[in-house]
Amino acid sequence: MEISQLGEFGLIDRLTQGLPAVNDSTIRGVGDDCAVIRNRDTDILVTTDLLLEGVHFDLTYVPLKHLGYKSAIVNFSDVYAMNGTPRQITVSLGISKRFTVEHIEELYSGIRLACEIYGVDLVGGDTTSSRQGLVISITCIGEAEPDKVVTRCGAKDTDLICVSGDLGAAYMGLQLLEREKAASVGQKDFQPDFAGKEYIVERQLKPEARKDIVSELAGAGIVPTAMMDISDGLSSELMHICKDSGVGCRVFEERIPIDYQTAIMAEEIDMNVITAALNGGEDYELLFTVPLHFHEKVKDLPGVKVIGHITKPELGCAMVTRDGSEIPLQAQGWNPLK
Amino acid sequence: MEISQLGEFGLIDRLTQGLPAVNDSTIRGVGDDCAVIRNRDTDILVTTDLLLEGVHFDLTYVPLKHLGYKSAIVNFSDVYAMNGTPRQITVSLGISKRFTVEHIEELYSGIRLACEIYGVDLVGGDTTSSRQGLVISITCIGEAEPDKVVTRCGAKDTDLICVSGDLGAAYMGLQLLEREKAASVGQKDFQPDFAGKEYIVERQLKPEARKDIVSELAGAGIVPTAMMDISDGLSSELMHICKDSGVGCRVFEERIPIDYQTAIMAEEIDMNVITAALNGGEDYELLFTVPLHFHEKVKDLPGVKVIGHITKPELGCAMVTRDGSEIPLQAQGWNPLK
Repeated sequence: MEISQLGEFGLIDRLTQGLPAVNDSTIRGVGDDCAVIRNRDTDILVTTDLLLEGVHFDLTYVPLKHLGYKSAIVNFSDVYAMNGTPRQITVSLGISKRFTVEHIEELYSGIRLACEIYGVDLVGGDTTSSRQGLVISITCIGEAEPDKVVTRCGAKDTDLICVSGDLGAAYMGLQLLEREKAASVGQKDFQPDFAGKEYIVERQLKPEARKDIVSELAGAGIVPTAMMDISDGLSSELMHICKDSGVGCRVFEERIPIDYQTAIMAEEIDMNVITAALNGGEDYELLFTVPLHFHEKVKDLPGVKVIGHITKPELGCAMVTRDGSEIPLQAQGWNPLK
Repeated sequence: MEISQLGEFGLIDRLTQGLPAVNDSTIRGVGDDCAVIRNRDTDILVTTDLLLEGVHFDLTYVPLKHLGYKSAIVNFSDVYAMNGTPRQITVSLGISKRFTVEHIEELYSGIRLACEIYGVDLVGGDTTSSRQGLVISITCIGEAEPDKVVTRCGAKDTDLICVSGDLGAAYMGLQLLEREKAASVGQKDFQPDFAGKEYIVERQLKPEARKDIVSELAGAGIVPTAMMDISDGLSSELMHICKDSGVGCRVFEERIPIDYQTAIMAEEIDMNVITAALNGGEDYELLFTVPLHFHEKVKDLPGVKVIGHITKPELGCAMVTRDGSEIPLQAQGWNPLK
């Protein structure tokens, strides 16, 4: 059977079905942003990401330092998405012959900067040659109080659905970078034109993990009922939460936060900006649900927007458009196995 | 600067120098078989291995199930080498188009078998497409009592040097597999000839991690002063322990344990069998040092052999040959960045 028939999640489901945990410390395995390992009164969170040149990044326009930074950030983001704090990472690299020591130092300078800013220690890894391209595998270890860990499973009917920041910008940044790359072909001394679109380029090349939102929630005494980071697109992540929590949802088109640069870029390439926001991916914003009685508190949190609510499962997952009609959500996010 | 000029350990030293730990829980970072993360009265051990097709394995003669098994085992081995118990792994895969779902299930069946036998839970990972070949990145989480963790740094003058099992067999198994692969070129229905050499083939294709030795040591009330697993070759690992502990060593050629199949294969390919045992790698046996007063206890442990002793640093690292002369040890083990 072709792997593309199953897709990433189908393949993982198939490979990991019927895997009972034998260790008492294994609280939560495959199927969330992090695995959860209990150790007395602390939960250890573990997440890992594998990034391959030509699949996940294009060194034509991605500076190595940015790549290092982003490779670390995407892992930190998974730990925050469980309401935890990232503490340590391991970094494994496969390096092909075209890379020099200076290249790898550049990559590492980005990883180290991310570690410095987020207070994370680089504690190990594995370094080897690769036959083709650069391979980056990062694992992040975090910690959380057991009663504060937030999975994808706890969303309940009438809960409010919230997102941080704005959506679709990283995807539009990618479109812009790809457009300028295409324009540069065969041109000497080509200068890409990012004027007025610096924000979406930065969102693609140097995303941040929402440590601040996790702090805000803690400060406000809010433990979300479910949380994920938005790496594959809002639509796909919402459907994960609804499936794992056994609920449905309604999100409102007019409530979805979009930056004006995202909108302008979408207009330029003749793409529906809502489609970009729903399915773009790589935003690394937090998507979470809170009980309805937190409405007053959550609506005042800086950088957080209420975009809809959880429903009974039989209502399914849908977006309510500006004219009041309902469009079923589809998981059209990035499929790494396509 | 070319990366091969620095080698794996030189590159890692350069990339990770001046990296202070900011988290109290980070007890030990880069530079041992595992990182050590303290959590109250338990130490969490973390190790990771990146395996790339064409660099670390050749699917011409390595069955996918064996590859899965070995990929897990090499990580478990690193945890045992710190005197810990492996508890969880994450498995990340990069999969190129030529692999089907059934192929990946075969690989996973080996990983799952290893987990079952060693009592480890598979708790997560990342799955993506790759442009070329198979990429396997496994991270293992283990645990140990803080006062029982064994690093590479504690060997002291007069300590006894011990190894488990026998050495050089995995390397000779690789030579045999490569020889049969070469012989098969252009031949239809070729049947490789492994008669009388099953042991060395198994040592290469399906190594085990020495959980039993860690149990034996615990049972005998012995906490080694230093320990490593032998993945790059005895010589290289001994020099690591001596460098990190600030000591020298003498090992005795006649004491180095070698299986007769290893000796026969070395003879056939006209290679010095001691060279294979010193530099072959992939044995996944344990190399450890114990205080001299444990001599009576350690010499009776099944599968353990005393091969030499630690000296003052000024004596350097050397092997004493059968005729009594001394040959300085050299780290000629496998260099993954060559």
